[in-house]
Amino acid sequence: MFKEILKNVHDKTPLVHCITNYVTVNDVANILLACGGSPVMADDEDEVCDITSISNATVINIGTLNKRTIISMIKAAKKANSIGNPLILDPVGAGASKLRTDTTMKLTCEAKFSVIRGNISEIKTIALGFGSTKGVDADIEDAVTEDNLEESIKFAKSLSKKLDCVIAITGVIDLVADANKCIVIRNGDKLMSKVTGTGCMSTAIIGAFCGANKDNILEATAAAISAMGQCGELAKKKIDDLSGGTSSFRSYIIDYMSKMTCKSIEGGAKIEIR
Amino acid sequence: MFKEILKNVHDKTPLVHCITNYVTVNDVANILLACGGSPVMADDEDEVCDITSISNATVINIGTLNKRTIISMIKAAKKANSIGNPLILDPVGAGASKLRTDTTMKLTCEAKFSVIRGNISEIKTIALGFGSTKGVDADIEDAVTEDNLEESIKFAKSLSKKLDCVIAITGVIDLVADANKCIVIRNGDKLMSKVTGTGCMSTAIIGAFCGANKDNILEATAAAISAMGQCGELAKKKIDDLSGGTSSFRSYIIDYMSKMTCKSIEGGAKIEIR
Amino acid sequence: MFKEILKNVHDKTPLVHCITNYVTVNDVANILLACGGSPVMADDEDEVCDITSISNATVINIGTLNKRTIISMIKAAKKANSIGNPLILDPVGAGASKLRTDTTMKLTCEAKFSVIRGNISEIKTIALGFGSTKGVDADIEDAVTEDNLEESIKFAKSLSKKLDCVIAITGVIDLVADANKCIVIRNGDKLMSKVTGTGCMSTAIIGAFCGANKDNILEATAAAISAMGQCGELAKKKIDDLSGGTSSFRSYIIDYMSKMTCKSIEGGAKIEIR
Repeated sequence: MFKEILKNVHDKTPLVHCITNYVTVNDVANILLACGGSPVMADDEDEVCDITSISNATVINIGTLNKRTIISMIKAAKKANSIGNPLILDPVGAGASKLRTDTTMKLTCEAKFSVIRGNISEIKTIALGFGSTKGVDADIEDAVTEDNLEESIKFAKSLSKKLDCVIAITGVIDLVADANKCIVIRNGDKLMSKVTGTGCMSTAIIGAFCGANKDNILEATAAAISAMGQCGELAKKKIDDLSGGTSSFRSYIIDYMSKMTCKSIEGGAKIEIR
Repeated sequence: MFKEILKNVHDKTPLVHCITNYVTVNDVANILLACGGSPVMADDEDEVCDITSISNATVINIGTLNKRTIISMIKAAKKANSIGNPLILDPVGAGASKLRTDTTMKLTCEAKFSVIRGNISEIKTIALGFGSTKGVDADIEDAVTEDNLEESIKFAKSLSKKLDCVIAITGVIDLVADANKCIVIRNGDKLMSKVTGTGCMSTAIIGAFCGANKDNILEATAAAISAMGQCGELAKKKIDDLSGGTSSFRSYIIDYMSKMTCKSIEGGAKIEIR
Repeated sequence: MFKEILKNVHDKTPLVHCITNYVTVNDVANILLACGGSPVMADDEDEVCDITSISNATVINIGTLNKRTIISMIKAAKKANSIGNPLILDPVGAGASKLRTDTTMKLTCEAKFSVIRGNISEIKTIALGFGSTKGVDADIEDAVTEDNLEESIKFAKSLSKKLDCVIAITGVIDLVADANKCIVIRNGDKLMSKVTGTGCMSTAIIGAFCGANKDNILEATAAAISAMGQCGELAKKKIDDLSGGTSSFRSYIIDYMSKMTCKSIEGGAKIEIR
């Protein structure tokens, strides 16, 4: 399943419009190129509609939101809806401040997202309309584990049904759900939480994968997340071999994305359908 | 020719004021340090004139422009003109949105640039006053090739004459032209298009090279672009040897810039005067 | 002394709220994770108080200040004071523009900082209320050397007394002083000045170290600066072994921070109490 999805990315070179945070934007642009997409970052309200119009997908990441860019996010989201482009949300830190929670609720209210990807604390904030996220990292007590998997899958499906949107919850175990089906992904390495931007990069390549597979949003999202996890596994092996640390790890993740093939993404996927 | 130019950079440590995009700004700062310059990023309208005044060159890159920074760009550009500093423009994505095209035309109208560096689609947008760039990457059908080289050189010289400004068009083949002379550069590697920021980095070091060689803008620009290309060639060899990917490639480009010598830049240059 | 300080960082995972520049923000976030902290970047005036409230330390870096973020900086600084959180200032480029100097003076006037870290030119600007910094790098003639060490220590202690704040002056020799005591640190490598962000990263981890050691600000600051220097020494050895350049050097600094242990920080420290 995943090999056709990656082949479409390689064949179509989807242009992905990102309104994203300035912390991880360089990694986001580089991993979009590495996976076979093409990035364009534009956040002024006077140009976001032009840029969304020429793009194949729009990714909104609120990691360093401000009043100026919130306006641009809403404009771009509505434009993406109006032309039928996949629209992806990364609600970074939703629950950590009123501004982030309110902006997330406003975005999901005023536009219809194709996919929302976040950690469990961010996604719970969306479900509840409020939250208590400690910063931009997930609360440990909330984590999806083998023990609460059944319940977590139900939560993801139910939120997906409510918002009519694919819900992706990433962590040690990743869930990608629509109302009826949940793809459980067990790729990745726990060191990914010690590097900034692995979430943002996942969201960005979800944009590329969906932009090239508009009729298959659920599987495209799962493929992107599995691809990130596989790169994390390979990168971990490489730093162990070369005595590297977290910065080399981050760099190798992008390296492996640039070398991923249709064959390797299929072979490396650790997925279960629930 | 290039060795004296690089020697001047190493001797003078030119301070380069950059108003640049937040996607590639870290790479831009690091490659400026690596080539022997010194970066200063400042984009508030209340300080750009102060910063330009203490700098040896000013680089304006519209990659993530907004209404606030456009005002700063114009102020800094005029100040650079008034004190006789080299002024460099990188019209990232000109043609991709009305805002980018209009800002590019406004900048070139209100200030006199020493050098404009872009990909062929961006430079054509400047020549025509409108464009249809697909994102921030060049359209393939526009590329400078051995087949259309004669015609492309004429175009570059003619635009240089019209704008009284060195025109640098980068791609597989790079052209650096004034009204009478075109330096054709065949350094580089096609993998450079799979990394964000190679264009922005080129533009930034053009600033450093011109800032240390104010009387020789054409050759300084060509030297900077050839240097970037040479680093790309060396970095490609290294990732092939070490089974690296695009992130390591990007890192090695900056590594090699930090190790470039007057001897190596001269020996590695693949140039032709037309 | 340093081993307990690092142990506290590892045990408490301090959340560090950074209002910082967009040039080095990714490195800042990654080194915070690498040292055992957790970063959160937020700069909109409507959310900085919320974010500071959930954080263990607040770091303000004026590297790419603008009128919007200056307001946020002042709000966050006052909030940090009101809840008793460590508050750290990095006055990047103070002296290089009126805006930077004025903002630095305004910040130190309206809030009480726990630590101010800068290069000697920036710190002298604070002491004098004006400056003539050439860009964001220190003037060579100002550098702290073995020859002027006695005098420099007096200056640091005296400024510390005046501002009731730990003063950290970094360069080839680093000084960390309160009114009565100065810790002289001789870790580091001169190549660190050829990479952007080593100062910003130092300031950020001072935030993490102080956030986890609120009752020991002087030693926590010295530990953070020594840790950065030790990582610089190790990274220099590695690029010499592997024929790397400045980009690899930067990456290895973060790598070594992620591998630093309580034992290694204690064993590698080159400090003298004066």
